[in-house]
Amino acid sequence: MDVFVSGIGMTRFGKSKDSLESMMAEAAAMALRDADLESVDAIYIGVMNVEEFVGDSNFATLLADTLNLTGVPSTRVETASSTGAGVFEAAFYAVASGHLKHVLVLAGEKMTHLPTAKTTRILSEVIDRSERRYGATMPALAAMVAQKYGQEYKLSPERLGEIFAQVAVKNHHNGSLNPYAQFRKEITRDDYFRSQMVSYPLRLYDCAPITDGASAVVLTSEPSRIRVSGIGHATDTSAIRHRASLTSFNSTKEAALKAYAMAQLNPSDIRFAEVHDAFTPFEIIGTEDLGFFQQGEGWKALENGTTQLEGNLPVNPSGGLKSRGHPVGASGLAQMVEIILQLRGEAGQERQLEKAEVGLAQSVGGLGNNNIVTILERCDRKRVLKEGWKPDYHPEIKVLKKEIIPPPPEGPGVIEAFTVLYATPEGFRSPLTLGLVRAKGGEKVMACNPDYRNPKGLKMGQKVHLSMKEGFYLFEKRTWWGKLASWWKKKDKPS
Amino acid sequence: MDVFVSGIGMTRFGKSKDSLESMMAEAAAMALRDADLESVDAIYIGVMNVEEFVGDSNFATLLADTLNLTGVPSTRVETASSTGAGVFEAAFYAVASGHLKHVLVLAGEKMTHLPTAKTTRILSEVIDRSERRYGATMPALAAMVAQKYGQEYKLSPERLGEIFAQVAVKNHHNGSLNPYAQFRKEITRDDYFRSQMVSYPLRLYDCAPITDGASAVVLTSEPSRIRVSGIGHATDTSAIRHRASLTSFNSTKEAALKAYAMAQLNPSDIRFAEVHDAFTPFEIIGTEDLGFFQQGEGWKALENGTTQLEGNLPVNPSGGLKSRGHPVGASGLAQMVEIILQLRGEAGQERQLEKAEVGLAQSVGGLGNNNIVTILERCDRKRVLKEGWKPDYHPEIKVLKKEIIPPPPEGPGVIEAFTVLYATPEGFRSPLTLGLVRAKGGEKVMACNPDYRNPKGLKMGQKVHLSMKEGFYLFEKRTWWGKLASWWKKKDKPS
Repeated sequence: MDVFVSGIGMTRFGKSKDSLESMMAEAAAMALRDADLESVDAIYIGVMNVEEFVGDSNFATLLADTLNLTGVPSTRVETASSTGAGVFEAAFYAVASGHLKHVLVLAGEKMTHLPTAKTTRILSEVIDRSERRYGATMPALAAMVAQKYGQEYKLSPERLGEIFAQVAVKNHHNGSLNPYAQFRKEITRDDYFRSQMVSYPLRLYDCAPITDGASAVVLTSEPSRIRVSGIGHATDTSAIRHRASLTSFNSTKEAALKAYAMAQLNPSDIRFAEVHDAFTPFEIIGTEDLGFFQQGEGWKALENGTTQLEGNLPVNPSGGLKSRGHPVGASGLAQMVEIILQLRGEAGQERQLEKAEVGLAQSVGGLGNNNIVTILERCDRKRVLKEGWKPDYHPEIKVLKKEIIPPPPEGPGVIEAFTVLYATPEGFRSPLTLGLVRAKGGEKVMACNPDYRNPKGLKMGQKVHLSMKEGFYLFEKRTWWGKLASWWKKKDKPS
Repeated sequence: MDVFVSGIGMTRFGKSKDSLESMMAEAAAMALRDADLESVDAIYIGVMNVEEFVGDSNFATLLADTLNLTGVPSTRVETASSTGAGVFEAAFYAVASGHLKHVLVLAGEKMTHLPTAKTTRILSEVIDRSERRYGATMPALAAMVAQKYGQEYKLSPERLGEIFAQVAVKNHHNGSLNPYAQFRKEITRDDYFRSQMVSYPLRLYDCAPITDGASAVVLTSEPSRIRVSGIGHATDTSAIRHRASLTSFNSTKEAALKAYAMAQLNPSDIRFAEVHDAFTPFEIIGTEDLGFFQQGEGWKALENGTTQLEGNLPVNPSGGLKSRGHPVGASGLAQMVEIILQLRGEAGQERQLEKAEVGLAQSVGGLGNNNIVTILERCDRKRVLKEGWKPDYHPEIKVLKKEIIPPPPEGPGVIEAFTVLYATPEGFRSPLTLGLVRAKGGEKVMACNPDYRNPKGLKMGQKVHLSMKEGFYLFEKRTWWGKLASWWKKKDKPS
């Protein structure tokens, strides 16, 4: 059964004094009014971590009650930071099954009321335990991804900074035109470079902010102007050290494959996209993984203007997570709201895209390991009917073989990626130097070094010495004094 | 599209040394083997509060990875303590939509590793904030329900105890025959009465235990022996003080109405049921709400043996939550596993029911406010084909009118229900006397009294004086010395 959109709503994103349930109720009321409905057959709510951010459990019930829809079935869905898209997918199946006619999809998160270090700690729980225990945060892992992207595609740190600045400047420009955005201000290249370092080389303006907000969509089996034409969803390894590549996400590629197949569309059919730019490098990698650009060439689209609002393939016309804000559970659904506004021609004079007939949303859960791709289109769109659809998107999915050799507790290694993290989670001292180190057997491990506090002292691909201390891997540069020190340490040990 | 069951699996419930993901992987491996599958199109996982019990977020991804199914889409679903049934429902729609063929449904919880007061605090977060802030726990609210049931149906406290003991003895007997049960031991009436008071009048043997465990089901669109024939889901008010009745759950009734309608069956067609006996009174109320017995007469089925293993309508042949154990996220799905074992004739010689052709599971989320009813049947069951199905289940749904008059901060009131709670959550002193008090305007409020420590001093329907202290309602018996004290207090206040 086909699934259509009959209503949308959202709060302005930002720092709010309202409770999470009030914000979600505001978005829901707007969507129900838009759909001209007083009630629905079911509510699907997306919140990522209401347990720790707000201290509530059984939130689906509280929401039904707050909405004055007591009685209506209400289910909570969660897929980490792609939750807004995950809850949309679950509701899509409920309507597509034919068992439910009108379903309210509702997503939100309340985050700004907590101290930043606590919020950072809660957000870090999406990271695999083996990496999180070192103090690794989402910005820290994204910083490693950024470094690896620069190394792999031979972009100097300076060049990389210029590219990331272009993403930030573009998305802030778009966000300045979006009444729902947290930051309605333009930023300049200079603002970008003046912003503080969060996790080297990522600055404040590379990272989506901490945000409160809610978004809502009503799905229905009754034909309307907008149709959900494709949804794809895929996971990847929990730990990033188990990935064959850090510079592209298998989960986006596999999700996109499924979404394009369901919609019988190809990347070239997509007119605009909302891409999960929780970190500036993620937008670039996202546009490559979705098949819009070749691997390693996504950054060129920023330089030649393709992904600008007036370009051929506008990316994040809403301002993206970067500028609209990122209430983690809500962002995926806010992407849908933007796409629907654009498809309906209701995005407002300044932001409205021409030829907005097919839009795609890519949502990233965790560090690229629970990703969802959704395609929406106008029902009145002329489809060139061919004899059967031919896919022209054939991404390469690289996977590490599963039998991993346990790394030696001590010995030589190579820095695969590193970062110096300044915004540490609760319980960790700042700054914190983290390295993803490839040990001799080939396996990668997360490691730290409390002595390095300046990123200039480290290089990608550098040879290091890996040792074990109190259950943690430490890495040190292999210098003559380092060797001497380790010899000295050994000498000291009782034999 | 019809949805069938092709595989089941579960761990033994109890206190486990394994991690939550290991337990869930064990149940999943069993279900996949049973379904003769190596992979699936999607994984739906149910965990109620993995954030606080285990300290993880992004658990759906971790599970896919642990199962060696990296790549497969994985979604977490939660509906409080009915999560196991909620995740089954979401997966049911995914298969029914025709978009996915084989879906692994997986549910689990790990709870025994934490101190009981902390577990109690986490479990209490399903309760509405306005009631939870007084220290109300699930057993405390269930105790109030129990008291109200006794008052409404004129059963003395002694009689009520005998009835509850019969539920506990029956379910422990059934559980003693279930290799997956946490408690494989029979208990006697004397054991019941010797067990400690948790929240007056509920004893240890009235309450489901704290448990670790996981259960799994594979749903498929390929015809198999067992069909999912009906699912219904409904919510109720977040706070119990907003209910018109405490002795029946609207959410069960509305869910049952939908499930019977989808299955085109009536209560009399059900051959056996798993009913959410988190507390002994809930089994009795559940069997009434499901239309098996008249309101206020469910307890008679225990006395006349109807719900025993050899009765006409066995209830909780598995031992129920009481004896199988209650890993909160897993229980709903464990109910399905039991029903499927019975339908397949694989429940084992001692527990196998005759005429097990149609089974029903009722799962309670929170304090009866997110309930799900699921009906499963054998595909080879002979259905007497009539000219259209005629429903004979017409439950009464009582709802409080929405405009609630704010209660006066001070004044006379009546005890609607009360309890003395001994097993208090983290941060609250034991014992704790809680009362649901009807104020003059008609609204009910939660209130406490730190001076009463003995339940014998209070009575249902007693007149009390309600006052406000530091933002909390206090209630006191209206005695001459109480009146004097309140006059004295007033006198003291600056005018």
